[in-house]
Amino acid sequence: MVERTKYILDEADMPTRWYNVIADLDVPPPPPLHPGTGEPVGPDDLAPLFPQALIEQEVTTERYVDIPAEVLEVYRLWRPSPLYRARRLEKALGTPARIYYKYEGVSPVGSHKPNTAVPQAYYNAAEGIAKLTTETGAGQWGSALAFACATFGLECEAWQVRASYDQKPYRKIMMETYGTTVHPSPSKLTEAGRAVLAEHPDSTGSLGIAISEAVEMAAQDPNARYALGSVLNHVLLHQTIIGEEALKQFEMAGDTPDLVVGCTGGGSNFGGLTFPFLREKLAGRANPVIRAVEPAACPSLTRGTYAYDFGDTAGLTPLMKMHTLGHDFIPDPIHAGGLRYHGMSPLLSHLYEQGFYEAQAINQRDCFAAGIQFARSEGIIPAPEPTHAVAACIEEALRCKETGEDKVILTALCGHANLDLPAYGAYLAGEMVDNELDDDVLRTSLAALPAGVGS
Amino acid sequence: MVERTKYILDEADMPTRWYNVIADLDVPPPPPLHPGTGEPVGPDDLAPLFPQALIEQEVTTERYVDIPAEVLEVYRLWRPSPLYRARRLEKALGTPARIYYKYEGVSPVGSHKPNTAVPQAYYNAAEGIAKLTTETGAGQWGSALAFACATFGLECEAWQVRASYDQKPYRKIMMETYGTTVHPSPSKLTEAGRAVLAEHPDSTGSLGIAISEAVEMAAQDPNARYALGSVLNHVLLHQTIIGEEALKQFEMAGDTPDLVVGCTGGGSNFGGLTFPFLREKLAGRANPVIRAVEPAACPSLTRGTYAYDFGDTAGLTPLMKMHTLGHDFIPDPIHAGGLRYHGMSPLLSHLYEQGFYEAQAINQRDCFAAGIQFARSEGIIPAPEPTHAVAACIEEALRCKETGEDKVILTALCGHANLDLPAYGAYLAGEMVDNELDDDVLRTSLAALPAGVGS
Repeated sequence: MVERTKYILDEADMPTRWYNVIADLDVPPPPPLHPGTGEPVGPDDLAPLFPQALIEQEVTTERYVDIPAEVLEVYRLWRPSPLYRARRLEKALGTPARIYYKYEGVSPVGSHKPNTAVPQAYYNAAEGIAKLTTETGAGQWGSALAFACATFGLECEAWQVRASYDQKPYRKIMMETYGTTVHPSPSKLTEAGRAVLAEHPDSTGSLGIAISEAVEMAAQDPNARYALGSVLNHVLLHQTIIGEEALKQFEMAGDTPDLVVGCTGGGSNFGGLTFPFLREKLAGRANPVIRAVEPAACPSLTRGTYAYDFGDTAGLTPLMKMHTLGHDFIPDPIHAGGLRYHGMSPLLSHLYEQGFYEAQAINQRDCFAAGIQFARSEGIIPAPEPTHAVAACIEEALRCKETGEDKVILTALCGHANLDLPAYGAYLAGEMVDNELDDDVLRTSLAALPAGVGS
Repeated sequence: MVERTKYILDEADMPTRWYNVIADLDVPPPPPLHPGTGEPVGPDDLAPLFPQALIEQEVTTERYVDIPAEVLEVYRLWRPSPLYRARRLEKALGTPARIYYKYEGVSPVGSHKPNTAVPQAYYNAAEGIAKLTTETGAGQWGSALAFACATFGLECEAWQVRASYDQKPYRKIMMETYGTTVHPSPSKLTEAGRAVLAEHPDSTGSLGIAISEAVEMAAQDPNARYALGSVLNHVLLHQTIIGEEALKQFEMAGDTPDLVVGCTGGGSNFGGLTFPFLREKLAGRANPVIRAVEPAACPSLTRGTYAYDFGDTAGLTPLMKMHTLGHDFIPDPIHAGGLRYHGMSPLLSHLYEQGFYEAQAINQRDCFAAGIQFARSEGIIPAPEPTHAVAACIEEALRCKETGEDKVILTALCGHANLDLPAYGAYLAGEMVDNELDDDVLRTSLAALPAGVGS
């Protein structure tokens, strides 16, 4: 009897609804506020930016939301995604722990991002919207939305952080291959971009600036809306298909995780994996420890403040209560571009405050060392973002080796590194540095938080 | 009832043996010859280059070869690979044809190459070999062997064609991440490399030169052997797992292909897909048309000569009877690096002469146009090599649209383009040219064939 390497659900067993963790919380998360009035934003405030269906999902308290048939049809291009048992890594570590990873790199763009890009494109198309705008850093989110827009016949325009646009052209080409128009940000096409360029003509941009540009463009075009790849409730909702599938796959495996660990940037991968496990925990059907791992260079959970702040640099978004390093904080250029965001999903921030999960920060060189060990045993080269989770898994598995504990560890391998290989090149060449966040920098950036709001 | 998008075998149903088409041929393929004596090469001649097990597989006439358990264990990291029904592409084309593709891009390196890299590394390790040398062009084969060597604890040294080494660093970094040492070819480490550099100090290299370097290094080190990623019988043998799985998946689908079409460079992807279908055809259990598609810039089947020729530029390999453009032919720098080989698998060349399949050549701009249409409907961006097969599929599907025929078409999507995106960038920017092979160039290169051998 050969032991299984991976657990794959039949297409017919793919979950048909997303899970909304808010339905199971005793204390609801604080609402987003209008920056002018300080009042909670209503559906009307969001209408210029999002279609009605997504605004409803953003505020719904229903426990489940049905996945439209048209979305399931596209999901089936790569879903259900495999759950792997990392037998070769376990052997290499000599650990009694059992390590599982849910692999989202099988999507056409190589990450978990299409799980939400596809429904976002679908709902916009269904409401007659012709075009989506968005921001992207290294381009994981941008390429996911580009793919999704191609499948539903939407135009797509992406503002990509200038540093990535110039240095990592592969994802830009991927977006263009799907038919999306890509602008470097800051650009001269928007007020927000021109304002930055006036002050810093050589600006290499940031996610916060790119968000400002994409939001501005969508707000002024009645046929366009804006799409965000993380942070918001509806985005995390869509990603719960990851955890729902994983639960079914653990049933196939006849096993139960003791520890569920994922990397956090804006929080969509982590929320997607862990919310269904949190539901099981709240219902008393399971009791896993849940842990978030963030980069030491951008540690919003472990060193940020829980306060109302803007989601972007120019202050165009509503104020959201979240763990933040300050909306004009620009993280050092670590290679995990997807984790370089000043804030954290308000929903996840709320759950963290409520004590539903723990968090740790890891330096990037430790992450890449873990990524290489993973690649040489499991074959897949993890994207820089999930190397954070992989490093935490390996650390835990080695702890188990000392204690002899046969702990069951689950992580989300949310993407592969095919388009991020220069980061591994820098590590192998000894050119990578650790960028732990400086106390003074953090103090300055937190001092710029919007004063006297909500707290 | 939802129609299936993909057909996935259970791990337990993965084929456990490779198929050797030679067992079913009335006329055996002509043997390789020793260039000095003109006599067939024996196992002893090959011993400095290959382990015993692979030499036996190269000449075996057994119909099936069992896949070792250790190889199956590694295969399970990504196999069985999915068979897709291209429903979205069919809809986009408006064709009554049913298009299926067997997708090998799910392997850790994104192509079919690990199907043979893994057993090659395994057999070498089992016979106590410490190191493998190889050549690679764009790096698909090199990264597959690097991955395989990492899984079996072998050292690996790869000579990469200088043009790719300089211009496309991603695959080099991938090889290094797996622990392989990569040299640009021509290099000063070998006689063959030094000879080329003496004459052409700025040489950007070719696959033929890189093969000479890797063979030379293996031959002079008793602990090292050489590994080749295509062309040879044992390589095609290992790839038959593609077609064997596809046959089982067609059973799941309750369908039968009328046309099986694959791209050909050295022939391993094409042989791997088609040999099991050819077996069914020879046994009277099926009757598909089988078709090879090659680049118009390197058309060994449609415009080459069937003659004894060297596999490399320096003439270090045995002479093999094959369709060839001449061993010092250097193809124009088309983007399908994996199809830029002067020769064709001797086994496939023999089968072509025997009339078992047909061939066509396509220009690269038509291929990339097809690749983009595929990406925008199916999500996956095909590697430059399989865009040739995709172009032929689309052509056929549009023919069916005219005739109303509901033909069943199967192709092998042997890899994704994540590491070849600059090729799409060049196409989208209008910078791509078609490089049809010039008659005079071909005449000159064929005039350099080794005279008076075997024909």
